[in-house]
Amino acid sequence: MEEKIKTPLIEIVGEDNFADSLIDLISYSTDASEHKRRPDAAVWPRNTEQVSAILKLANEYKIPVIPRGAGTGLSGMVVPEQGGIVLDMLRMDKILEIRIEDRLVVVQPGVVYGDLETALAPHGFFFPPDPASGVVCTLGGNVGANAGGLKGAKYGTTRDYVLGLEVVLANGSVLRTGSRCMKCVSGYDLTKLFVGSEGTLGVLTEITLKVNPKPLAVATCTANFEDIADAGNAISETMRSGILPSVLEFLDDQCILALNQGTDLNLPQVAAMVLAETDGFTQEEVDYQMDKVIEVFKRNNAKGIARADSAEEAEQLWTARKSFGGVITRLKNNFVVEDVTVPISKVAEMLAGIKAISKRHKVPIATMGHFGDGNLHPNFVFDGTDPDEIARIRKAAADLFKLGIDLGGTLTGEHGIGLAKANFMSLEHDDVAMEVMRSVKRLLDPNNILNPGKMGLEI
Amino acid sequence: MEEKIKTPLIEIVGEDNFADSLIDLISYSTDASEHKRRPDAAVWPRNTEQVSAILKLANEYKIPVIPRGAGTGLSGMVVPEQGGIVLDMLRMDKILEIRIEDRLVVVQPGVVYGDLETALAPHGFFFPPDPASGVVCTLGGNVGANAGGLKGAKYGTTRDYVLGLEVVLANGSVLRTGSRCMKCVSGYDLTKLFVGSEGTLGVLTEITLKVNPKPLAVATCTANFEDIADAGNAISETMRSGILPSVLEFLDDQCILALNQGTDLNLPQVAAMVLAETDGFTQEEVDYQMDKVIEVFKRNNAKGIARADSAEEAEQLWTARKSFGGVITRLKNNFVVEDVTVPISKVAEMLAGIKAISKRHKVPIATMGHFGDGNLHPNFVFDGTDPDEIARIRKAAADLFKLGIDLGGTLTGEHGIGLAKANFMSLEHDDVAMEVMRSVKRLLDPNNILNPGKMGLEI
Repeated sequence: MEEKIKTPLIEIVGEDNFADSLIDLISYSTDASEHKRRPDAAVWPRNTEQVSAILKLANEYKIPVIPRGAGTGLSGMVVPEQGGIVLDMLRMDKILEIRIEDRLVVVQPGVVYGDLETALAPHGFFFPPDPASGVVCTLGGNVGANAGGLKGAKYGTTRDYVLGLEVVLANGSVLRTGSRCMKCVSGYDLTKLFVGSEGTLGVLTEITLKVNPKPLAVATCTANFEDIADAGNAISETMRSGILPSVLEFLDDQCILALNQGTDLNLPQVAAMVLAETDGFTQEEVDYQMDKVIEVFKRNNAKGIARADSAEEAEQLWTARKSFGGVITRLKNNFVVEDVTVPISKVAEMLAGIKAISKRHKVPIATMGHFGDGNLHPNFVFDGTDPDEIARIRKAAADLFKLGIDLGGTLTGEHGIGLAKANFMSLEHDDVAMEVMRSVKRLLDPNNILNPGKMGLEI
Repeated sequence: MEEKIKTPLIEIVGEDNFADSLIDLISYSTDASEHKRRPDAAVWPRNTEQVSAILKLANEYKIPVIPRGAGTGLSGMVVPEQGGIVLDMLRMDKILEIRIEDRLVVVQPGVVYGDLETALAPHGFFFPPDPASGVVCTLGGNVGANAGGLKGAKYGTTRDYVLGLEVVLANGSVLRTGSRCMKCVSGYDLTKLFVGSEGTLGVLTEITLKVNPKPLAVATCTANFEDIADAGNAISETMRSGILPSVLEFLDDQCILALNQGTDLNLPQVAAMVLAETDGFTQEEVDYQMDKVIEVFKRNNAKGIARADSAEEAEQLWTARKSFGGVITRLKNNFVVEDVTVPISKVAEMLAGIKAISKRHKVPIATMGHFGDGNLHPNFVFDGTDPDEIARIRKAAADLFKLGIDLGGTLTGEHGIGLAKANFMSLEHDDVAMEVMRSVKRLLDPNNILNPGKMGLEI
């Protein structure tokens, strides 16, 4: 990094908050995806003023700036594709206010999701999105990516809870959006424009989130299906049965295989396993809903339905779902988690299509996901040292995206576009939509310094 | 209207869908607010292509275009402040798809809210926002204004249910946003940018809405309070008690006075009356929550708590709340409904402030509202033929806005900025925010033809 930039950068953040050693740059070269590229430097800003000064500097010299949370993203969203400065937000990690009386919290972007949950628990409140990486991911990352999670079917995603933001714009000016009110229709909804914008429109420095009273009762069950179509249909049918399950998770035969290879769970090697949860304030409420779920499951030929009678039993049922992330590499050394999402009624069709793609390209695909909102995670497993396997994975992924879009779906339900799907944006969005997105980007970041190369905006 | 515009306009929509007679123009000169200004013509477009052709024409000649639903807005949002063409969307009134299996509906903008409710009822689903004008207002208006309603505390507002839009932009091009998936993070959230944009960024021609399974059980109660502060505190405390009431409505002594003058209800003339409702799938769930509500109410000195044991009894409790709109003019001939919204914990303080403003300016104010989300509706009643009263109303309103903002509130929780609050935008939004809003407007509507003069964007 040139001295003319490095010197003022260090002046802004201090020596202790600047890094450009090789080991640091390698650490910041990737996230939880397969994408890699080293930045020129990394800094840990401590406050909004520093972020503003950094952006003014970067904007003057037209240097990329990549805001980064915990780096748990799966789409290469924080990979410095054109080099530049990584803004590691982990030292802006204060929960500024917990205002249960106003049903909201105010946090800095570096607060870990799980830490907010811990802080809210004594109040009987929670922040619902529940991303699978909740113990490590940051709220800034959640908002930047519009993180989903396990409870989307009932509770929606991060977007639905962001009341207001403080955002530093590319020119260093500080924008405040939204309000501390539950309702606000004063002016354009700038808040939601930044939610899910992947750091390409501004740097989040403060976040106001709505929180919910936590349900007191939960019912959990798992069911096995010999036919994957039955499982898909059971899920779609549950979602139109008149109740709202809080969780509806799915694991296919390949996931079960990995779990049986990597754990002592000894699961039956069926075509699919589904985990359902209902919640409410009373036992009657959760039981009523769970009875409906089980009725639908039985009608769709579910076998071995196990219903938890206690929190301990529920935890056992959750073990398989939660263990999956740790065992998938038992199948092969490398994997890519996809995130295709379809209208709920198309889940069974999408599952059949994934099996066909797997067969066509000779690529093992282990599919799991949050099926209550049509969000599938096909995991492509492969040997990353074999160029032929990599080529087949690429073709299989392209077929997957196309199939999802053909079924009325989207490229990504919760992982984001990042680098992973940048080249596929025009499959989903027509020229008018792409041009509006690009023009919004040019409006707010005319020098294209904010996380450039992402979301297909430069194609 | 000049022939060079009138002729091609009639060519686009046909004679039967064009109007410029004086009586028509007067009809289109206002909404449910006190604002008035005649347009130059009105048209009823029948499809997206016609809307596109109209906007191309208007953009070429730089003529204002004002999209309009049922005209139930309270902020002058559809008043043609600079003349031009009113696009009455009421003839684009088809429910295009009801896809319970995908948990969504696709509608044209002219569909009446209540008609969608009727169409959804046999499926056991509903569209939650529940605006008070639901029997007449249109879904296009709901989305354009981001309508709130009686169930915001639990269910949020229109914004939370809009999955995707078809929007005709100022230059006539047709933008499709969002998707038919429950989750979608593919590209910028353009959908939410148009929700609540008051027709200033584009004309909605198709709307995709998420719908919810309808709760099967409801509990209702009303309570009286001798002290308005107790009522305010009871509401704030309910919202942090760990449950989520579906309704928490408030009527103050002036509202009760109007009801007693205009109906046979013979309500006790107390300081405030509160109506609470809880919902769920089972009786136990709604009772558990209602017990909590009543516990909180009692702790805050509620008197005469009446709990409904049947749907008929609940309907009786609702009568007072629902009758208010029809009796308010018993107090004086004219009224303006305000819409200030504050953080939940500030409700009692805001109520005290409203009483002080009423006294200071000698303006009767009847306050009601959806207090579970801090949304107050102070109704200023006055004699519209008395310039002195009008002047006092103006001062009282300015004081009200300032107090709301000082308490961390917003100018408008659900009625919108329109003309009514255009001059007050900078009270709430700083220069950076105003400039970002204005630049978004310039980007999408460079000739400022779309509903010009609204939201304070030209000040």
